Amino acid sequence: MIVNRRGWMGLGAALGLPVLGSHAAAAAAPRQGQMVHHVFFWLKEPGRAGDREKLIAGLKTLRAIPEIRELRVGVPAPTEQRSVVDSSYHVSELMVFDTVADQARYQDHPVHKRFVETCGDLWARVVVYDSIDV
Amino acid sequence: MIVNRRGWMGLGAALGLPVLGSHAAAAAAPRQGQMVHHVFFWLKEPGRAGDREKLIAGLKTLRAIPEIRELRVGVPAPTEQRSVVDSSYHVSELMVFDTVADQARYQDHPVHKRFVETCGDLWARVVVYDSIDV
Repeated sequence: MIVNRRGWMGLGAALGLPVLGSHAAAAAAPRQGQMVHHVFFWLKEPGRAGDREKLIAGLKTLRAIPEIRELRVGVPAPTEQRSVVDSSYHVSELMVFDTVADQARYQDHPVHKRFVETCGDLWARVVVYDSIDV
Repeated sequence: MIVNRRGWMGLGAALGLPVLGSHAAAAAAPRQGQMVHHVFFWLKEPGRAGDREKLIAGLKTLRAIPEIRELRVGVPAPTEQRSVVDSSYHVSELMVFDTVADQARYQDHPVHKRFVETCGDLWARVVVYDSIDV
């Protein structure tokens, strides 16, 4: 149960839904056993006009794939430059799946295959991290 | 508006809340301008009993920091081994913040500083990716 500092439950929490955007609520706990698929892309031609936007638009088409529980498309954030922070990539894609099997189905989905066909020439390097929640 | 395959809106969608766990719903869109802070840890002594669990437990204490909207602690997922997948890390921490300023406040929070004091000897290497949603 999520109770905020005033001692009452929000509507979302009462319904068992995640509570977002309240500074008073504790961070929402993820569903047990979900997995995160985080991909970082380095463009082949970072200076070529429109390539970054084409990749971002392509990644957003993936939202149609039903196994994806959460999709975030990002670019490096203007956080403090520290030696441990890798901000050399150009675009990132973060997805949450309920299961490892759902992630495998996503890989084979026609919308994902079309994205790779359409945008695969844009990047020089990709690094993927797949993590399962513990 | 999120409409499932039967053509009706779920309760969460009707309330403007993210809909999770329904294979029929589209992936929930993140809040505009949020940022993701994703940290990968490589243990100093991966074979030493209990170090991984100590790090995981330490990371879970961070949930008390109010700026964190979402916290996931993970380990490499058993997805397909591909050359682009880096599964060499031991533990990962994924956080969502509403703003870059919130992430800076998190860095200075006493609970985060205590975590670094308590667990900082456990890891040999850390890589951080900070992404802002676009």
